[in-house]
Amino acid sequence: MITLPYLLQHENICRLEGKHLLIGDRRAFPFEKRFEVCSSVDQVAESLRAMVTQGGGPLEVALQTMVWVTRLMQSGELRGGFAALADAAKQLMAARPTNTTMQRALQSLLAAVKDSASDLEALDHAVQTQVDLMLEGYDRLYHQMGRMGSTLLKQDSVVLTTCFAEHTFLLSLAYAKESGKHVRVLANETRPYLQGSRLTAPSLKEMGIEVQVITDGMGASFLHAGKVDMYMTAVDLLCMDGTVVNKVGTLSNAIAARYYNVPYYAFSISPDPTKQGGADVTMEMRSPSEVTRCMGSPTTLDSIGALYPAFDIIPSELVTALVTPKGILEPEHVKRNFP
Amino acid sequence: MITLPYLLQHENICRLEGKHLLIGDRRAFPFEKRFEVCSSVDQVAESLRAMVTQGGGPLEVALQTMVWVTRLMQSGELRGGFAALADAAKQLMAARPTNTTMQRALQSLLAAVKDSASDLEALDHAVQTQVDLMLEGYDRLYHQMGRMGSTLLKQDSVVLTTCFAEHTFLLSLAYAKESGKHVRVLANETRPYLQGSRLTAPSLKEMGIEVQVITDGMGASFLHAGKVDMYMTAVDLLCMDGTVVNKVGTLSNAIAARYYNVPYYAFSISPDPTKQGGADVTMEMRSPSEVTRCMGSPTTLDSIGALYPAFDIIPSELVTALVTPKGILEPEHVKRNFP
Repeated sequence: MITLPYLLQHENICRLEGKHLLIGDRRAFPFEKRFEVCSSVDQVAESLRAMVTQGGGPLEVALQTMVWVTRLMQSGELRGGFAALADAAKQLMAARPTNTTMQRALQSLLAAVKDSASDLEALDHAVQTQVDLMLEGYDRLYHQMGRMGSTLLKQDSVVLTTCFAEHTFLLSLAYAKESGKHVRVLANETRPYLQGSRLTAPSLKEMGIEVQVITDGMGASFLHAGKVDMYMTAVDLLCMDGTVVNKVGTLSNAIAARYYNVPYYAFSISPDPTKQGGADVTMEMRSPSEVTRCMGSPTTLDSIGALYPAFDIIPSELVTALVTPKGILEPEHVKRNFP
Repeated sequence: MITLPYLLQHENICRLEGKHLLIGDRRAFPFEKRFEVCSSVDQVAESLRAMVTQGGGPLEVALQTMVWVTRLMQSGELRGGFAALADAAKQLMAARPTNTTMQRALQSLLAAVKDSASDLEALDHAVQTQVDLMLEGYDRLYHQMGRMGSTLLKQDSVVLTTCFAEHTFLLSLAYAKESGKHVRVLANETRPYLQGSRLTAPSLKEMGIEVQVITDGMGASFLHAGKVDMYMTAVDLLCMDGTVVNKVGTLSNAIAARYYNVPYYAFSISPDPTKQGGADVTMEMRSPSEVTRCMGSPTTLDSIGALYPAFDIIPSELVTALVTPKGILEPEHVKRNFP
């Protein structure tokens, strides 16, 4: 039986409690298991902007927010019916504009419940049913992709990874382990937020998978020494031509993996049909102050400038294959499989 | 007139004061300008091991230690004559075994003063004279290489760099600036010690050169965006076949620079005649606890393991050219120029 680590259990990503929506605070993990307690949609949107949760977190938060808003409307705490629900969805989408998976999920949810808009009880029921269905669907996908990903791993494989690749990556390792394969992970610490050190490494440890942290400049060093068998990451956004958009730091390792003929596999639930290639992606520049601080401490003088592009655009030619619900696809076959 | 920044002024690298040798503590910079006060050769060796100073620092510390030891012998505080001096040198060499420039300088100093070994006053005079000559020689070389390096820079060149490339690199930028060229530097923060954030960026700022800090995984991102004109680093050790050994993180950017057809230039005073190629280099593995801490704060749980190879071995095929006292050389021409 595969058990997900603490961070990826639904109730720790987000949950409703009384009149509040609780979001697991990934910024405090693993030092503290705290929750951001939200009392309004404004506060949820602000939490997403502030990256209280990230990666696949915002998707679940957004869906649970829809459940929460309809429940509050039914109990008379909120007003506005379907229009208010649609407004809340809009606000969440605007909070993380690059998270197009969340956007598409919200749009599809709204379309599915629109017919129940006239009656609050029917709306509440429809939203809850639809969100349950969607979350179950994602869980099924995650496990399916985890099983697929595990076939790429061999006995004693060493996997380099960047950031926190969540369900699909962790489940790949879990299924490999379940089938008796020992695997080891080298996790880039992933500055500035240290998702590798803080989220990936403790989660793997919790799952009984061997992991060592390295700094972001060290991946090539281990590739050079012949100590890496594959590079694996999640995908923040997959373009139709197989271009991968993922956490800054991914490109550097993808290039080094190619230089040393080591395969690079990326996990994606679905490509974004509105993005044909890298040219369609608007780069999110985040606050330079994150680069000049680490764990809250300044790393240089306040007068020193910095730059922080949030994501890398990885040309499809560097991607060996994409693990998707439609199978393990070469990048040029993405479009044909997701028409 | 070119002025070196605070960190590279001789008296701030190390100096004698009364009966003590003071070493500028690069671990505290730029937040504090403190000195490690040494009262014994043991303490100097321990300071080198603990990386109170690094890069070109240990070379100057080692030479000044020789002056200090002979002075203490002449005033009767220490005994042992030339043999004690040779012992002190041995101890310093053992403290940073990969610093072969320091080793060669100490060996050449000992050879040069050996004839004055019978008389303490003559020895003191010989050591002081020889060390002054050597330091003046290095200064001349640094400026000569700085002038050479500046010819590689053009108006508005953007230079990516890793770690703290010290005199030759900083002087290249200074001479470029003096000749009216505006240049800009993207400095990798260089985890775990953050030499880029702490040493390079403040020194460039002090010199009036535009600099921005980026995290170690971001170099490829800016190369991909076409925003980097060249990659420049120092060399911790240059092999006779043009293989470069430098701070971990250098290789990753060198590979990315090659992928985007951006030149990589490295600065070296001289190759190590005992190292024909990368296979001759023993990798120094440093404490994993540095990787799982940043500025003293833990970045993950104490139970999580980490790895810290101190240096990268950069194959000569990735090096466009080496800036050396014998000119700007292609890697395959190193051996012929330093027979």
